Amino acid sequence: MVEIERKFLVISESFIGESFAQKRIVQAYLSSVPERTVRIRIKGDKGFITIKGKSNNSGTTRLEWEKEISLQEAESLLSICESGIIDKIRYEVKVGNHVFEVDVFSGENEGLIIAEIELQSEHEIFEKPLWLGKEVTNDERFYNSFLSKKPFKTW
Amino acid sequence: MVEIERKFLVISESFIGESFAQKRIVQAYLSSVPERTVRIRIKGDKGFITIKGKSNNSGTTRLEWEKEISLQEAESLLSICESGIIDKIRYEVKVGNHVFEVDVFSGENEGLIIAEIELQSEHEIFEKPLWLGKEVTNDERFYNSFLSKKPFKTW
Repeated sequence: MVEIERKFLVISESFIGESFAQKRIVQAYLSSVPERTVRIRIKGDKGFITIKGKSNNSGTTRLEWEKEISLQEAESLLSICESGIIDKIRYEVKVGNHVFEVDVFSGENEGLIIAEIELQSEHEIFEKPLWLGKEVTNDERFYNSFLSKKPFKTW
Repeated sequence: MVEIERKFLVISESFIGESFAQKRIVQAYLSSVPERTVRIRIKGDKGFITIKGKSNNSGTTRLEWEKEISLQEAESLLSICESGIIDKIRYEVKVGNHVFEVDVFSGENEGLIIAEIELQSEHEIFEKPLWLGKEVTNDERFYNSFLSKKPFKTW
């Protein structure tokens, strides 16, 4: 239930040609409080509820709990979420031994592209592709829960 | 996913002798915002996550979604909930064709006893036992999400 992930800005769209899967993600929050976010997500034709605790001091380890739910349940729960729906296409890109999830945001967050990688430990080594920019793991502004309240276009 | 329930204060403990089941309930909230409460509950030896929307104007119809989760998951999620744990014994009492759930609170809410009945429609008729007091369906102070922030003993 604990995940280690690192987040980076993306500086070119060249990853799209290397992507082996793409899915639209629509999500919103029942709670966007950083100590306990509760997210409802539709990813392709599946629904999910995901709960995350707050990161530890280094920002990379946090409690995460997720369950698949039906599309109908997800739609029903989205209807009572906080305003600020996030809409994005997620590209999966294999680089060396790892898979990056690269999110291309639309709507109020258009212009923003973020890559995320899940690691076994905080110091695990991974290959950095040319399109990978600055690390933003510890920058709360790039949390989806923050983007739903303060979208990229308003920065 | 829509429930109709009415809530009443309880004016005597005589219901205990009529009860056919009792379970301890410990619960807390990931979100206690009335528009979208997210509750983690341990009831006996089972765990649950429950999400409720806001009541309509008459206060009796609201979106409700619930999934059973493991005891271990519930304990893990309770650890990141808002402060203000609710601890109570729930008695089930059959009265006529209906079952009342009667909650006897302890801890910070000691002294409070609330009976709840689930109905098919807002105007369904049901038998009122002698121990049933004033209706509090529309009184937000008696929501468990409110009691977790403003416990009965502080009133």
